[in-house]
Amino acid sequence: MLTLLLAEAELELVPKEVLNHPCAVAYAKKRGKKGSNILLDSTIHHPALKKLEDGWRRGRPDIVHFFLLISLDSILNYEGKLAIVVHTRENKLIKIDRGTKLPKNYMRFIGLIEQLYQNKYVPNKETPLLRIENNRTIGDIIRKLKGRKILFSEKGRNENLCEYFKKYDDVVCIIGGFPEGNFKANLDNLIDDKISLSTHPFPSWTIASEVIVSYRLSKITSPS
Amino acid sequence: MLTLLLAEAELELVPKEVLNHPCAVAYAKKRGKKGSNILLDSTIHHPALKKLEDGWRRGRPDIVHFFLLISLDSILNYEGKLAIVVHTRENKLIKIDRGTKLPKNYMRFIGLIEQLYQNKYVPNKETPLLRIENNRTIGDIIRKLKGRKILFSEKGRNENLCEYFKKYDDVVCIIGGFPEGNFKANLDNLIDDKISLSTHPFPSWTIASEVIVSYRLSKITSPS
Repeated sequence: MLTLLLAEAELELVPKEVLNHPCAVAYAKKRGKKGSNILLDSTIHHPALKKLEDGWRRGRPDIVHFFLLISLDSILNYEGKLAIVVHTRENKLIKIDRGTKLPKNYMRFIGLIEQLYQNKYVPNKETPLLRIENNRTIGDIIRKLKGRKILFSEKGRNENLCEYFKKYDDVVCIIGGFPEGNFKANLDNLIDDKISLSTHPFPSWTIASEVIVSYRLSKITSPS
Repeated sequence: MLTLLLAEAELELVPKEVLNHPCAVAYAKKRGKKGSNILLDSTIHHPALKKLEDGWRRGRPDIVHFFLLISLDSILNYEGKLAIVVHTRENKLIKIDRGTKLPKNYMRFIGLIEQLYQNKYVPNKETPLLRIENNRTIGDIIRKLKGRKILFSEKGRNENLCEYFKKYDDVVCIIGGFPEGNFKANLDNLIDDKISLSTHPFPSWTIASEVIVSYRLSKITSPS
């Protein structure tokens, strides 16, 4: 089983420091929603982000959207060999059922995640496809996941992932859910390995795609 | 070099049979554009598609969008080893410069492709990132591309792509740009091989992702 953990994802509701900024007020009015029930989005709230701590990296639901679409649509997921979890900057944990058909439309995805933040479950508590839990630090989450724990970082060691994965059955791959830069938490004591796919920074979904395909390839033997 | 050809992609302007349908008229008005300069989109024009030939599969710019985003963002593309071309149902050929930063926002992508259909070049003729040419049949295109030609089809032979690609340097992978079903053209005499990744149908971008990652893996030797 491959577990993908998108960690420190820049997903959060509009914080109180931003709520009264004209860009946030106008956007909330346009959507006919209460400002505090709306996801922070750098393409909308960028004028207000400048003064916010870590403002340059916050408000990136698009990263989570693409990461989930690519993961859920993968052959590995169809084969039942992929588990997907998202950890956010506020230590929320989102669990995603592998059968989830996520909206490809970005605004419909935004609406769905806002519904999740309000109700804790989507579509409902009885048969949830998405669930959100509070107060789950990245350390807690990593400790509870089963398998060899690999952090993907530009500072890691270069590896041929397909050869590498042949050595392990259960693997947990930790990928940053932020646009660039480093993890805020020090994860060195929680992981077994640190791997780099390139010294150039790539989007989270590109790393996810490399990991998912390589893992699947490592587990099949060629019929030829 | 890996060349990805998204073939028979369901990308076209609103055809004349659909132009006067209320759904097309309302959408053109909303966007403040001439109806005939707008891309056919099944999510918008589905009431009009029912009566159209192949209506069930037409109007899928979202497939092209995702395919291009995943391909352009790949490590293989960054390394300069990927060429990307799109062939459409009307025998148009779209050439994409590998440095293109495509809008992730779907509506901005739609606007860009509509601009491409009008001007033949985007952003301009002098330094085009996207170019469109008419009257390029899939046969013409495949014949001119260099490398071993592989069609991806649910009816193909199962292969470990990583092992397979080790045998060839230049590879042309042909992936359907339509939601489901078969290629309309018979490509059997133009290809060297027909490969299946699964008997289950997967989106074009999932196949693209498998091909891109496997090709890159096949060309690197493990340092371990």
